[in-house]
Amino acid sequence: MRIGFIGLGAMGRNMACNLVAAGFDVVVWNRSAEPVQALVDAGATYGEPSECAGADVLITMLTDGEALTEVLDRYDLLAAMGERTVHVNMATVSAAAGRALAARHSESGRAYVAAPVLGRPDMAKAAKLNILAAGCESAIATARPALDALGAKLWPLGESPERANIVKLAANFMLVSAVESMGEAASLVAAHGMEPSDFLEVVTGSVFNAPAYGAYAPAMGQRQYANPEGFRLALGAKDLELALEAAREGLVPLPVAGALRERMTQALAAGHGDEDLSALAETSREAAQLDSAHRD
Amino acid sequence: MRIGFIGLGAMGRNMACNLVAAGFDVVVWNRSAEPVQALVDAGATYGEPSECAGADVLITMLTDGEALTEVLDRYDLLAAMGERTVHVNMATVSAAAGRALAARHSESGRAYVAAPVLGRPDMAKAAKLNILAAGCESAIATARPALDALGAKLWPLGESPERANIVKLAANFMLVSAVESMGEAASLVAAHGMEPSDFLEVVTGSVFNAPAYGAYAPAMGQRQYANPEGFRLALGAKDLELALEAAREGLVPLPVAGALRERMTQALAAGHGDEDLSALAETSREAAQLDSAHRD
Amino acid sequence: MRIGFIGLGAMGRNMACNLVAAGFDVVVWNRSAEPVQALVDAGATYGEPSECAGADVLITMLTDGEALTEVLDRYDLLAAMGERTVHVNMATVSAAAGRALAARHSESGRAYVAAPVLGRPDMAKAAKLNILAAGCESAIATARPALDALGAKLWPLGESPERANIVKLAANFMLVSAVESMGEAASLVAAHGMEPSDFLEVVTGSVFNAPAYGAYAPAMGQRQYANPEGFRLALGAKDLELALEAAREGLVPLPVAGALRERMTQALAAGHGDEDLSALAETSREAAQLDSAHRD
Amino acid sequence: MRIGFIGLGAMGRNMACNLVAAGFDVVVWNRSAEPVQALVDAGATYGEPSECAGADVLITMLTDGEALTEVLDRYDLLAAMGERTVHVNMATVSAAAGRALAARHSESGRAYVAAPVLGRPDMAKAAKLNILAAGCESAIATARPALDALGAKLWPLGESPERANIVKLAANFMLVSAVESMGEAASLVAAHGMEPSDFLEVVTGSVFNAPAYGAYAPAMGQRQYANPEGFRLALGAKDLELALEAAREGLVPLPVAGALRERMTQALAAGHGDEDLSALAETSREAAQLDSAHRD
Repeated sequence: MRIGFIGLGAMGRNMACNLVAAGFDVVVWNRSAEPVQALVDAGATYGEPSECAGADVLITMLTDGEALTEVLDRYDLLAAMGERTVHVNMATVSAAAGRALAARHSESGRAYVAAPVLGRPDMAKAAKLNILAAGCESAIATARPALDALGAKLWPLGESPERANIVKLAANFMLVSAVESMGEAASLVAAHGMEPSDFLEVVTGSVFNAPAYGAYAPAMGQRQYANPEGFRLALGAKDLELALEAAREGLVPLPVAGALRERMTQALAAGHGDEDLSALAETSREAAQLDSAHRD
Repeated sequence: MRIGFIGLGAMGRNMACNLVAAGFDVVVWNRSAEPVQALVDAGATYGEPSECAGADVLITMLTDGEALTEVLDRYDLLAAMGERTVHVNMATVSAAAGRALAARHSESGRAYVAAPVLGRPDMAKAAKLNILAAGCESAIATARPALDALGAKLWPLGESPERANIVKLAANFMLVSAVESMGEAASLVAAHGMEPSDFLEVVTGSVFNAPAYGAYAPAMGQRQYANPEGFRLALGAKDLELALEAAREGLVPLPVAGALRERMTQALAAGHGDEDLSALAETSREAAQLDSAHRD
Repeated sequence: MRIGFIGLGAMGRNMACNLVAAGFDVVVWNRSAEPVQALVDAGATYGEPSECAGADVLITMLTDGEALTEVLDRYDLLAAMGERTVHVNMATVSAAAGRALAARHSESGRAYVAAPVLGRPDMAKAAKLNILAAGCESAIATARPALDALGAKLWPLGESPERANIVKLAANFMLVSAVESMGEAASLVAAHGMEPSDFLEVVTGSVFNAPAYGAYAPAMGQRQYANPEGFRLALGAKDLELALEAAREGLVPLPVAGALRERMTQALAAGHGDEDLSALAETSREAAQLDSAHRD
Repeated sequence: MRIGFIGLGAMGRNMACNLVAAGFDVVVWNRSAEPVQALVDAGATYGEPSECAGADVLITMLTDGEALTEVLDRYDLLAAMGERTVHVNMATVSAAAGRALAARHSESGRAYVAAPVLGRPDMAKAAKLNILAAGCESAIATARPALDALGAKLWPLGESPERANIVKLAANFMLVSAVESMGEAASLVAAHGMEPSDFLEVVTGSVFNAPAYGAYAPAMGQRQYANPEGFRLALGAKDLELALEAAREGLVPLPVAGALRERMTQALAAGHGDEDLSALAETSREAAQLDSAHRD
């Protein structure tokens, strides 16, 4: 099976690598040249976007809905897609963008699957992503072998692609909430004289022993937030924004998300945007002045 | 080894049962007579508080610090404790109460261990509690066989008993945050036409596959919140209050906890206090008017 | 002086009326015909948008930036404006839209003033608006006689039009905060057995004796929220959204605004969007179940 | 008329001075000697607490309910009060303390009026306080001449003393909300390049032209927060805490108050507790890193 892969960012390059390793015929394209060579070295071929679009399955993993729409338009990919090509959009996009993308493909008679993922670059590398897939059943079936090579589990979410986008946004809101709560709690115990790392070991070893915590606790404990395979805080802020946008659209008050949003802005203002999401813990520390001399 | 056990509430009765089953010589007391008989039937003996206090290990599992202090005072338990008796307080108490209790025992020359637990009554029944133990090392060692019969794991947290109380409060804040976030997220997907239970299956089956979520998702999915073996929402509200009190004392801002507190009050005002903590999801539904006719 | 006036909504019709009454030669246009006749009866003339744009001063008072942009584009108003016409945009628009509008006019060599107002339709009728004006000094001077006929006071905010938009959004955030706080406080005293109206009389008669409170307290006290001359809650929600957008852009955390936003959503979900902003008090009452039987 | 006055803090000393100036026979007591001399120099006499309690009217203006209760108990003031003495408690106390104080006086057959005030030390000095008075009508009538010498206006709030306490707490919550919102808004405009003082002039000169804003805007504009006649931020934090306590007791969710509380903690952690409440604006600036080099 031939797979076109567009978007070789921190997530995409790991995913495309796994497809090559699984034996698929993979043709890749990326806006900047830098990550392409590594894929070609690994066995992929380089192709123009239209060539990628002509494959059996076209996977796009771009930054957001705007980036995807721009590529679709600039290279006229809907026209370039084969009649039987299935476009699998694995990026996190807004509910509105998700609906618009589904409508555009439908109007052009193209098969479209929304398949955003839960998992950071390191999970992508390990092919342990949770894939949230929604779209026409037969289209998902066509893409399935590729998706199986990318993830630990595929969660079918029905025929309406937008649903997968909503689930992804709701889950990422839960994730930001989990990490922020853990950071606040770590500051609470620190203010009472305990080592945050001891606390984090307890919680992630007991009732919070899930990746949503375990993947972020070590960085928090060591206060080392640079991690190219992590989840960029600025991306978490963006996802939270999209979740709140979907909530406003659906008239659902999300008081915790509202509090998180402003805390995220505080973290961005403090310069943590390019660090891992676990850097939220630093903003808790800063707000409590835990590292100020006058605490002593 | 002889164990005195005071406080046979939803948690305590399950824990005392496990001690009896593990072969300890258990003497129990409870303010109301009702739960005593079941324990006696199971093999425990009934005794006055002072008799319980004279055992090798005195375990107290009362509602809160005030209840414990009242029992200590009324029955003069510090005097009734043997010289080598170890008092293990397994209840959730405030940081301030924790400090005061430690000081009282110390001044009286009595051994005191704070050992609050993570886990609901059903986990207590299954002897799968996570036990957070702090206090003098030799006292913990004395109590250890009993504690091992109660829980899946014991987490030693140092010599200062108050630390165990802080960790417990910080963990319960994280728990309330996890459940509320899950409830908000479930309302978000519901407003976009999805079944919350489908969403909950995805998240608790993937990156949130921890008891903090798994123990609450089924009730949320089925919207059945009556559960005598669950975690009463009103207790969760109280623990959150104690966490915020400890945070204020330590000058640690907890913006998520602040938002949670008001949402908890909304749930209490709506009459969900005696239901399981998962009933927070109903408050999200109510706030979004998800069950109102005008939504259709 | 000839004034073109586009946008005869709840605010605009009152403002245009005052211009006619002040003796200006006013030519009006509105998307729907309904409000035009009353203006014509009062002494204005009807004209196409391009005719309005050819006046000495073109005042636009449309719903938002999108509506204004649409009218500008559809009727090519920048081309229709005279060389010396000053366009005064009195609507509340986002910071981004404000910048874009200023840039478009500048590129076309047209004079542009942003002059959003503080005040509800009843204040517009009474010509007691506070006008926040920013733009080229000479352009403001040209428009000044018209603006003086509309408001009690004009506040010059410098040459950069966007500033007036930011000030307006910041002030409306403060307004929503004032009204919501008053509503929460009214529920607090009600839960303790007092009449909210007694409380509101005290606060608006003492340290809160400003329009931001006084204009909303009577409706709150009487629980009568239908008011065509009031400030629609849904518009308040929109302004708050724009303030948060500007804050995110400027990396400024606004924790109170974050909490307000979710409360606004709760009010919208409960169907209060078309009522006056004071209806926020009902959402406080609903959240506290103040009118539920079980309170008694 | 003879007036006993206990509590010569920042508020009390100004109030007692006004009573002396109005010609009353004033006997004062204070825990520390320092402020007594100034009163004596002004014409008051010094007396023991029991002597103060024997006057026609006993005014107490202590820090909080705990301080008042301690003085009542230590000096057995209820016994020392004359049969016709009216005790007017002008301090801000919790709803619970207010109830307890009313009950104690009632049981002892002593007249008690709760009369907390709205206004800062500078307003106390100018005899422009708003006095919130609740208690037996005849007791208020007895104290009225003294109260009239202290304030611009007296607001009668019924026979139940606790009501005055609740109104005071609700109003102070509104005040903290007003000041915090103004500070957040000032940071928002600052991030967009404007002088906060220009913005503050606009809002306090237009729809927010009330003491709740006007008393705090100048300090915010000049960023000078040391003010012995101001409202200490730490006291504002305490009042907010009491408002939230009363709200929890009455099961009233206060989402804005919840957000405020955590922001207050952030301000306290940053060392602003002894500054004027307007210093909240600094916490907004700090959270947005407005004074950091990387902003430029």
